[in-house]
Amino acid sequence: MASMLLCRQLAVNLQQNLRLSAPRYRCISKAATKSSPDVEFDGPSMKTEVPGPRSRELTEQLDKIQNTGAINFFCNYEESRGNYLVDVDGNRMLDLYTQISSIPIGYNHPALLKVMQNPQNLSAFVNRPALGILPPENFPGNLLDALLSVAPRGLRKVQTMACGSCSNENAYKAAFIWYRNKERGNMKPTKEDLDSCLSNQAPGCPEFSILSFMGGFHGRTLGCLATTHSKAVHKLDIPTFDWPVAPFPRLRYPLEEFVRENAQEEARCLEEVEDLIVKYRKIGKTVAGIVVEPIQSEGGDNHASVDFFKKLRDIARKHGCVFHVDEVQTGGGGTGKFWAHEHWGMDDPADIVSFSKKMLTGGYFHKDELTPAEPYRIFNTWMGDPSKNLLLNEVLNVIRTDSLLEEVSRAGKVLMDGLYDFQARYPHLLSAARGQGTFLAIDVRDDATRNILIMKARNKGVVLGGCGERSIRFRPSLVFKQHHAHVFLNIFNDILAEYK
Amino acid sequence: MASMLLCRQLAVNLQQNLRLSAPRYRCISKAATKSSPDVEFDGPSMKTEVPGPRSRELTEQLDKIQNTGAINFFCNYEESRGNYLVDVDGNRMLDLYTQISSIPIGYNHPALLKVMQNPQNLSAFVNRPALGILPPENFPGNLLDALLSVAPRGLRKVQTMACGSCSNENAYKAAFIWYRNKERGNMKPTKEDLDSCLSNQAPGCPEFSILSFMGGFHGRTLGCLATTHSKAVHKLDIPTFDWPVAPFPRLRYPLEEFVRENAQEEARCLEEVEDLIVKYRKIGKTVAGIVVEPIQSEGGDNHASVDFFKKLRDIARKHGCVFHVDEVQTGGGGTGKFWAHEHWGMDDPADIVSFSKKMLTGGYFHKDELTPAEPYRIFNTWMGDPSKNLLLNEVLNVIRTDSLLEEVSRAGKVLMDGLYDFQARYPHLLSAARGQGTFLAIDVRDDATRNILIMKARNKGVVLGGCGERSIRFRPSLVFKQHHAHVFLNIFNDILAEYK
Repeated sequence: MASMLLCRQLAVNLQQNLRLSAPRYRCISKAATKSSPDVEFDGPSMKTEVPGPRSRELTEQLDKIQNTGAINFFCNYEESRGNYLVDVDGNRMLDLYTQISSIPIGYNHPALLKVMQNPQNLSAFVNRPALGILPPENFPGNLLDALLSVAPRGLRKVQTMACGSCSNENAYKAAFIWYRNKERGNMKPTKEDLDSCLSNQAPGCPEFSILSFMGGFHGRTLGCLATTHSKAVHKLDIPTFDWPVAPFPRLRYPLEEFVRENAQEEARCLEEVEDLIVKYRKIGKTVAGIVVEPIQSEGGDNHASVDFFKKLRDIARKHGCVFHVDEVQTGGGGTGKFWAHEHWGMDDPADIVSFSKKMLTGGYFHKDELTPAEPYRIFNTWMGDPSKNLLLNEVLNVIRTDSLLEEVSRAGKVLMDGLYDFQARYPHLLSAARGQGTFLAIDVRDDATRNILIMKARNKGVVLGGCGERSIRFRPSLVFKQHHAHVFLNIFNDILAEYK
Repeated sequence: MASMLLCRQLAVNLQQNLRLSAPRYRCISKAATKSSPDVEFDGPSMKTEVPGPRSRELTEQLDKIQNTGAINFFCNYEESRGNYLVDVDGNRMLDLYTQISSIPIGYNHPALLKVMQNPQNLSAFVNRPALGILPPENFPGNLLDALLSVAPRGLRKVQTMACGSCSNENAYKAAFIWYRNKERGNMKPTKEDLDSCLSNQAPGCPEFSILSFMGGFHGRTLGCLATTHSKAVHKLDIPTFDWPVAPFPRLRYPLEEFVRENAQEEARCLEEVEDLIVKYRKIGKTVAGIVVEPIQSEGGDNHASVDFFKKLRDIARKHGCVFHVDEVQTGGGGTGKFWAHEHWGMDDPADIVSFSKKMLTGGYFHKDELTPAEPYRIFNTWMGDPSKNLLLNEVLNVIRTDSLLEEVSRAGKVLMDGLYDFQARYPHLLSAARGQGTFLAIDVRDDATRNILIMKARNKGVVLGGCGERSIRFRPSLVFKQHHAHVFLNIFNDILAEYK
């Protein structure tokens, strides 16, 4: 065992030496390092293959309890810092995936540790209230200080929830309730409505629908899943609703070479959206809402133009549908703006914006008229978790104090320029570098090659994630700086040089 | 303002004096007090009406952000201790509702505060991992020490989730996946399966169903909601599935007087269950699973006999349906056994048992064969929250060390005897006292009277909850002792004496 470890160590050292001979980026890397070593490490450090022996041992233990097919490796979160994730075998990796895009300001940020060490906050962690009936004194104030301080334009109401799926499920419910109330002319429900709904029958349970897009991802509970269309593995064998699914534009890159084709593609998708709204209304499955991601994330980082979203928003308005922008993955700053939809520059971008992940709490912002008139219609036991609001409040302070959105734009530019350079040098391997801020992606030749590149990166100390059929997605936290981009680019440069 | 408060204080004092003249229970109350004052208070203490002025002020603030129709009052969780919930106006109330049955061992339990103060645990609270891909080192060990140490008989696998609804949603998915796999003869899905499911169509998305019971409650997300049938307000205007809904026995009380009628009622319900399974299979909406609460909680604390559950379990087995026991509200010790289904005394009580609330984390236990063979089929970003597992581990230690389940049985007996006495003395007001452990309920003449009694109790320092059409449910935490039962009975005795 010891000799095996030794052999592996020698191999790792050899790899590290080899890297020194690879072209470009070398000169910039170290010079740009800003973080002090007590806050963060100065680079990756690999001791074993990943997963290493301890990770494999723990995976075997966990496999007796759960399916472990998705486990990458086990982590030592105590030792992880900033952009660096440390595993249980002592490997230290630069993390550009950040727990599926859900770590806002890196690991063990001192400001968050301080929140935990403040005795005044203890009670929020050990006494989880039923927020809908018995909230703590600081609940309205915390909503104002934290969530409402970043409320999307035009949305002054917010409802917290435990996770992204619950946020979307409840946002859909708010859309249905609002739509039916409008149909009813604000009249009270009839006795028939009230009685029939208890047995899952119309008219109490109407055949409303939410229109979603092929390639979209909005969660995996049954309501959300009816609007998720990114991968078969999520949906196979699960009963669902016959709700309309519109095509999402598949843009061709580089954008400047396909201006006309892409405009046609977007027009085709928008036409289909309107056709589906008309068709589903005719068959009695009225579209109460449209749900869309500003960037289809799980589905492959599929983008559309500002013009597309403006026209889509107009279609929703024209047909009286709620326009729900799902920012569970895009929200919280990764695109260089706090919400990805801010890039659209619209006065009235949405009726509902849902969030989770980097926001630490799930929930959704909404227009005033989407607040149900009656209590208990949007309700559950916990309705979120005030301890997450506390941490979020501090995350937002750090984002402001350290001007992290500007840092994201700066670091994103370095990362994007590097990706452009890679795809220029390896056109048979890489294409369609795209994105905003550090919320970037690049396509790889095929699924198998994509997965090989991700594995190679991991063994050289960089954690990446895939999305769609053959894309790599970049989702660093907001404390990812220019020099971290250089660390990644150097390593990936070596991998590409070896791979070609 | 000051004089108004003074007047109210005088009124409260007067009420307290009046209480001294009410019959019974008085002698037992104080003598039985065991808790030391530094851990808990020695009784309720009321300073204002509830909600008081500060609660009303905060409700106005919150109303600008959310519908506040369900808010009871705002709490001072820092000052709350054990069985006593303190509000923002300084009122101290004995809590028999415990955040809709979700506080396991009272407020600010010293053992839980200690978990929070241990620096080794800090990292679990500030670095929430994506458990399905990058779990922390102690994750398998914590599952073994905590959740699996209380695994229901025959269930050796567990999946954590963020809340009760997500637990049931994913448990239903596990049932569908298992059932379809069985139908397919363990063969791989066809290309048609994979393609069709992405557009929400069969055969990839089959028309499977979950059979549930009228009066049952399993959550409010769209999948759960299709099996929830307790109140119209939960379901109205939300599209749903045409899934079979069986009648749940409506037992007549006192049980000993209606043995024959109740047996007939249960037989009728079981017959209907079998009929529905056959009928829904015929119309192509095959019943993949049956979901049932051991005690229908939100729906009115509706009980059925052990014989009923044994026969229901047999029906599930006979028809090849997953038998899913939803213990989100009943689980965690309130009935005097850790799981309510343990009262059935069965060797093979369930295929799935879901939990949340008092367990602090959501999730479900399941049989080995209900683990999907492929990764990512039961999956989401967070898959629970390890910080909740840490707290749960300590809760379970306290339950064992302090023999809390025995305490529950003892306190429950005092509470139940008191309820029997009340209904004997006020038969025009109260009936059908029922339950196990401290998980008790009593019916009130009508909805309006029930609500008045709950309001009066609150203003005299006792927090109670309603359920069903006209029941009061008792859901104290596991640190509720005999002397707490006496405190409640004294106060309620006074209320009844005044009310009659």
